[in-house]
Amino acid sequence: MPIINVASTLEYSVNTPTIFVFSIVPAETPHQRIVEENLMLSPQLDYEWLQVGEENIRNIRLEVQPGVFRLDYQATVELTPAVDNAPQLDEAIYQSLPAEVLPYLNPSRYCESDRLTLFASKEFGTQPAGHARVEAICDWVNGHIDYISGSTDASSSACDVLVSRAGVCRDFAHVSIALCRALGIPARYISGYAVDLQPPDFHGFFEAFLDGKWYLFDATRMAPVSGFVRIGLGRDAADASFGTIVGSANLQNMQVSALDKTSATGNEQPDEAISTA
Amino acid sequence: MPIINVASTLEYSVNTPTIFVFSIVPAETPHQRIVEENLMLSPQLDYEWLQVGEENIRNIRLEVQPGVFRLDYQATVELTPAVDNAPQLDEAIYQSLPAEVLPYLNPSRYCESDRLTLFASKEFGTQPAGHARVEAICDWVNGHIDYISGSTDASSSACDVLVSRAGVCRDFAHVSIALCRALGIPARYISGYAVDLQPPDFHGFFEAFLDGKWYLFDATRMAPVSGFVRIGLGRDAADASFGTIVGSANLQNMQVSALDKTSATGNEQPDEAISTA
Amino acid sequence: MPIINVASTLEYSVNTPTIFVFSIVPAETPHQRIVEENLMLSPQLDYEWLQVGEENIRNIRLEVQPGVFRLDYQATVELTPAVDNAPQLDEAIYQSLPAEVLPYLNPSRYCESDRLTLFASKEFGTQPAGHARVEAICDWVNGHIDYISGSTDASSSACDVLVSRAGVCRDFAHVSIALCRALGIPARYISGYAVDLQPPDFHGFFEAFLDGKWYLFDATRMAPVSGFVRIGLGRDAADASFGTIVGSANLQNMQVSALDKTSATGNEQPDEAISTA
Amino acid sequence: MPIINVASTLEYSVNTPTIFVFSIVPAETPHQRIVEENLMLSPQLDYEWLQVGEENIRNIRLEVQPGVFRLDYQATVELTPAVDNAPQLDEAIYQSLPAEVLPYLNPSRYCESDRLTLFASKEFGTQPAGHARVEAICDWVNGHIDYISGSTDASSSACDVLVSRAGVCRDFAHVSIALCRALGIPARYISGYAVDLQPPDFHGFFEAFLDGKWYLFDATRMAPVSGFVRIGLGRDAADASFGTIVGSANLQNMQVSALDKTSATGNEQPDEAISTA
Repeated sequence: MPIINVASTLEYSVNTPTIFVFSIVPAETPHQRIVEENLMLSPQLDYEWLQVGEENIRNIRLEVQPGVFRLDYQATVELTPAVDNAPQLDEAIYQSLPAEVLPYLNPSRYCESDRLTLFASKEFGTQPAGHARVEAICDWVNGHIDYISGSTDASSSACDVLVSRAGVCRDFAHVSIALCRALGIPARYISGYAVDLQPPDFHGFFEAFLDGKWYLFDATRMAPVSGFVRIGLGRDAADASFGTIVGSANLQNMQVSALDKTSATGNEQPDEAISTA
Repeated sequence: MPIINVASTLEYSVNTPTIFVFSIVPAETPHQRIVEENLMLSPQLDYEWLQVGEENIRNIRLEVQPGVFRLDYQATVELTPAVDNAPQLDEAIYQSLPAEVLPYLNPSRYCESDRLTLFASKEFGTQPAGHARVEAICDWVNGHIDYISGSTDASSSACDVLVSRAGVCRDFAHVSIALCRALGIPARYISGYAVDLQPPDFHGFFEAFLDGKWYLFDATRMAPVSGFVRIGLGRDAADASFGTIVGSANLQNMQVSALDKTSATGNEQPDEAISTA
Repeated sequence: MPIINVASTLEYSVNTPTIFVFSIVPAETPHQRIVEENLMLSPQLDYEWLQVGEENIRNIRLEVQPGVFRLDYQATVELTPAVDNAPQLDEAIYQSLPAEVLPYLNPSRYCESDRLTLFASKEFGTQPAGHARVEAICDWVNGHIDYISGSTDASSSACDVLVSRAGVCRDFAHVSIALCRALGIPARYISGYAVDLQPPDFHGFFEAFLDGKWYLFDATRMAPVSGFVRIGLGRDAADASFGTIVGSANLQNMQVSALDKTSATGNEQPDEAISTA
Repeated sequence: MPIINVASTLEYSVNTPTIFVFSIVPAETPHQRIVEENLMLSPQLDYEWLQVGEENIRNIRLEVQPGVFRLDYQATVELTPAVDNAPQLDEAIYQSLPAEVLPYLNPSRYCESDRLTLFASKEFGTQPAGHARVEAICDWVNGHIDYISGSTDASSSACDVLVSRAGVCRDFAHVSIALCRALGIPARYISGYAVDLQPPDFHGFFEAFLDGKWYLFDATRMAPVSGFVRIGLGRDAADASFGTIVGSANLQNMQVSALDKTSATGNEQPDEAISTA
């Protein structure tokens, strides 16, 4: 049972009365328990918890007046992932997909799966179905896309990145998600903390729906999936920005960390499929 | 209280065992009552009702074997829309938007609102906020985009259409939705039946969230908003396709109709804002 | 010395007074001699030869009044290509590229080479330079893009096709050209007749500039390069449309053919590089 | 007769043996005489003049070894533009366009005129043809696009900018050129020096072909057309980059200036059409 300490600090220079929605707090799920947490705002301000969806995503909304605004959050999180045998995980049958999973087959802003039907079929159509096929997608993305900071911007989509062949973690997730959906595999974007991520930052990865459950994947291979702490989720990064700003403010300082405090670290094994959904 | 008779017939030639999800049945909402309905499948097959989301969208999922497959649906629907005074409807305040409305501010596959911030601000930034601003968007879209059948395809997005200046109903909705979101007005795509639509077909229009409620709009101006019967909704047309096909089948015949059976037709007045959400 | 008979018939229904520019007549070059040719217009109309560029491209411009208009062209063409040893052809050195070749390194409407620098470098950067590298590009394009009639339209570019993975001859040429330019190899689009093309049609292929000369390539592999008769050329298909119409006319009938009349057909050998530029 | 002093300084840190092509020297044309000029390279290196096309564009090509490389250029240029009466300039008739002008009707990398046919027709179709219509395009571009430094990058095209509504001088030129071509008016990109440009820099503007001659236009309205000194030209900015680098080098310092040394400045009058082509 991994115990992870996560922390983030965000400091803004606020120019006009501004409303923030922060998505930085780990979700409370059956597999992800918040042992303790602490949120400090400076100045001390009232805030609202926005409970989004059935996944118990917890966002923070507040209004801030001009001046310096700082948020410090830290938590201890206990993960009890379902660890299943990856080779045995088949793809879910379309006819039995739960209604709430179906939207994750649709194309979204950054994952234009509708344009990638033939691409996905040509590259992955003959792969064995199931967990192995999603792994094959991650391998392909990892091998064909270079991780280059600053190579993409907020408007870059999976198709853009398949052409430019460069991106950051959110782009790796977008390409993987788009290819999964193009093959009929529901896939969604996850934002979170990641142990051992270098440089430390919020991370973006994805989940694919296999055999009745959501399983974690990360085509960047920059940090172990077993050390991921979920914050938000959605169809793509458009749904899981760590900070939404309505007004005018500049981010002056940001620090993010995630540390594994487990004494004996039972590392993820090759054939394990991790699910914390 | 408008009483609308809606009907649709879909006939497919099915090539392989195929799963269909049909989104052709009106939703049951506080403002939209199904007086009676009748669904006939030929051959007679078991089907599943897929209840999607809190809006009581009812989709039909079934598996069909090769051969000819035909679906006939007809219903009598009573609409009791909330009719509010349009000029008094202001835009909702971001800080008080319900959590479930927030995703409708995010860009989606066909509504790249993130790319249209300056566009929307330059064209509509000085318009009075509220219902009038959404009407101004509809006016602009109606005046600047030509309705041309076949001018777009399943991959055309709002930005594509702003360049090509031609589209069909779904494109008119996508452009309007994208411009609303770019201005901070939540907006979503609605599929439905529309009285007096020529030629008769399923229709695509949109809703904007104003003053705490969703209001109907249609930039095509091809049919009165008061005669719209809602089927599905979503972020854009990707979420509201009338027929999703997993397998192989060809649509051979499609007929759609919507007739107003109300004796005294109380036509929509210029200053009325219609809400059936 | 291949002797090729080429012919084309174009029939239009002309709605208003319309100006046509036809690019259907083989160019006269040191390696491509017109033995005889015959052009028939019905009705008989005056026309102008448009001599375009140093490559002796010969276009036909004329004005046609409303009614039926028909053009019949046939020619006998003798090809005396320079046949060089492919393995010995290195890439040209940038410093010694003639000024008139430099524009063929620039991105163009359908060949966005500027966006493909990393793509090309990752896929072909370690290939041996020269003729072999262009062949590797053709192999890749042939293996990764499906030839599907109707899969693209007049606005589809190399980047679109790299995503959709489907196209026709002009798309195969555009992708190849874009990848060449991204690697610093000048490349240009050629339109022409092609012996043994099925179904018979005008063909689009490309040339790469190697070791001081332009060499023919065709990633579709649908017809032997040695049976290509050049009509027009340019940066991409935008420069080499077989018919440009200013006015209003509908193409009603089109027939194209190219037959090899050489008695002993000396087929192109694997290691031969063909240049008719 | 305007006398303009132009000067530019470019300083690079060169990392590997690198070939440069500089396009910074004014063209010699019947309307643009180089009174005197001076080019200094440090270190002193051999260079080659690349004469491009019939417009006497003069580029400089040279190879530079690693280290600091500096180029200083200054010239005195006498302009004797043809000044015609703008209201009398009609659009050229397609049937009589010279063959060498025709390519400037084709879409190019940054000017996708093929996608803008309906856009241009809806916005400018009812404008009086000729110089007035090109002015109307410039007015529209100037009014609908914001000049924002850094808002676009090297891959931004006219269609991108019509959506984002922001750009710099090259984008203003690209949008104008694309709209001209979509209306059947040949248009091309010009790079040059511009008197009174703030901040001083190389400038990008365009020419439209009217009544048998090329006329200067600039939708940015940031500097008087009468003070433009032509360097290069092409289908769009892809053909007229001030510096092309094959190798590895970083621009460390760049200074550009253009000063009007004419004693009595005869300012451009509203109804004058300036042609230096």
